[in-house]
Amino acid sequence: MTEFELLSEHRCFGGVQRFYRQASQVIGLPMRFGVYLPPQAESGPVPLLTYLAGLTCTEETFAIKAGAQRHAARLGLALLTPDTSPRGANVPGEADAWDFGVGAGFYLDATREPWRRHWRMESWLLDELLPSVAAELPVDVQRSGLFGHSMGGHGALTLALRHPGRFLSLSAFAPIAAPSRCPWGEKAFSGYLGDDRTQWAEHDATELMARQMQPPYPGGILVDQGLADSFLAQQLHPHLFEAACAAVGQPLTLRRHAGYDHGYYFIASFIDDHLAHHAEALHR
Amino acid sequence: MTEFELLSEHRCFGGVQRFYRQASQVIGLPMRFGVYLPPQAESGPVPLLTYLAGLTCTEETFAIKAGAQRHAARLGLALLTPDTSPRGANVPGEADAWDFGVGAGFYLDATREPWRRHWRMESWLLDELLPSVAAELPVDVQRSGLFGHSMGGHGALTLALRHPGRFLSLSAFAPIAAPSRCPWGEKAFSGYLGDDRTQWAEHDATELMARQMQPPYPGGILVDQGLADSFLAQQLHPHLFEAACAAVGQPLTLRRHAGYDHGYYFIASFIDDHLAHHAEALHR
Repeated sequence: MTEFELLSEHRCFGGVQRFYRQASQVIGLPMRFGVYLPPQAESGPVPLLTYLAGLTCTEETFAIKAGAQRHAARLGLALLTPDTSPRGANVPGEADAWDFGVGAGFYLDATREPWRRHWRMESWLLDELLPSVAAELPVDVQRSGLFGHSMGGHGALTLALRHPGRFLSLSAFAPIAAPSRCPWGEKAFSGYLGDDRTQWAEHDATELMARQMQPPYPGGILVDQGLADSFLAQQLHPHLFEAACAAVGQPLTLRRHAGYDHGYYFIASFIDDHLAHHAEALHR
Repeated sequence: MTEFELLSEHRCFGGVQRFYRQASQVIGLPMRFGVYLPPQAESGPVPLLTYLAGLTCTEETFAIKAGAQRHAARLGLALLTPDTSPRGANVPGEADAWDFGVGAGFYLDATREPWRRHWRMESWLLDELLPSVAAELPVDVQRSGLFGHSMGGHGALTLALRHPGRFLSLSAFAPIAAPSRCPWGEKAFSGYLGDDRTQWAEHDATELMARQMQPPYPGGILVDQGLADSFLAQQLHPHLFEAACAAVGQPLTLRRHAGYDHGYYFIASFIDDHLAHHAEALHR
């Protein structure tokens, strides 16, 4: 449990949008995150919905662009938005590309040098950030949901499948659904994990789903995908995740939306449906 | 009427968020603006609600941060978001301060050198942009509303009062309501207009309201103001505008919100009320 420092707060839909910095022991650097607390949090702990953002994003992106606080305030959900990578590590080359290094942590613990010291996003999120948030803020981490976008959709699907029971509800926007089989994932996994593809499979939502003995989310997983998304054909492969779900009997609502692209205008258009999906499970 | 160039478009809540560039004759430079067209615009012209943004903002700020498209899509309102100043004029000192010059056009036509050639925001908006938008897009400019935030709240209140009948509905978030009597306004007016305070009064919402012979908006003006707004005491002076409205019998709903600051988390929290306020007048 690591204490954290309040950087700013803004009243929003009767609740409060805050931004914090945590001196992370796991990552060895200060890490930032946002929290939206709905009005209901004034009367006691509320369910916590964690959102993992995509490449190049920060802890602010979702809070600013998704328009989620409005419905979260109605539903009584807290929203946690972690940053997408360590910052300030000064690893050589960390900022050379927008799809690897800074802003591109891929929500895993790197095992390769020079990344393994600081790039430990999975451990930070699960072993340090969530316990700290549960200890410091009026949220009920036993009622946790997880979702994300693009790289963060990959993060949501893989972390939920790798840690059974930690998250009661799961959804994603345009996730990198089969990272072992796309350029973004190949670059990230070879850089952070090395060339052993058996290691890659441990962080690939499609591979993880394919090996489930029973459906991990019997209440269903929600995935939204825009059909005008310029990354759809090469990077995202939701059809592979869809097939893996079908093979193990995992209920999946994969909605394909004509005309929508990869950005936050797409996310905002469907955010209320995702919040409702999580609220149904978390308020049960 | 000047044609314009589509820079990007994004499907959003069943409609489309677009960004354009116009080779402005009035300003003598390319000017950018955003347009949100709701789904109803596919079947014919819809009312147009123009939003004027605050200091340092661009044509994208409101589109990204306010979460307005959701309710605009329901109400069948188009949203027009112009940029806040000329850019690329290379006037000496234009970018030296965040509250004057670039990003700080104050929605007036400058009369002083070196600003008078390009800083002609009022003429651009009323004589060039709105007619062009009406000619090129499925909007009914006869059913126009105007609102804005901070410097853009000043712009909305003053342009509506200076051009009777052009805008059927009017509202503002945290407007600079008496610019002749605050540091932002004094700096802008002396820079753009010179030292003659009779000229300032022509662009001061409180002064303009005080001289009305009858209430220009008998249906009411809506203003929202956060009480934790760090600019409230020194810069905004909504109570002066409130007094001027009272003196001329102009109905004003000035809502003061405890805890809310000057930013877009505040705007997003009350945006739906503003859209409804305008829709009521524009759909009449």
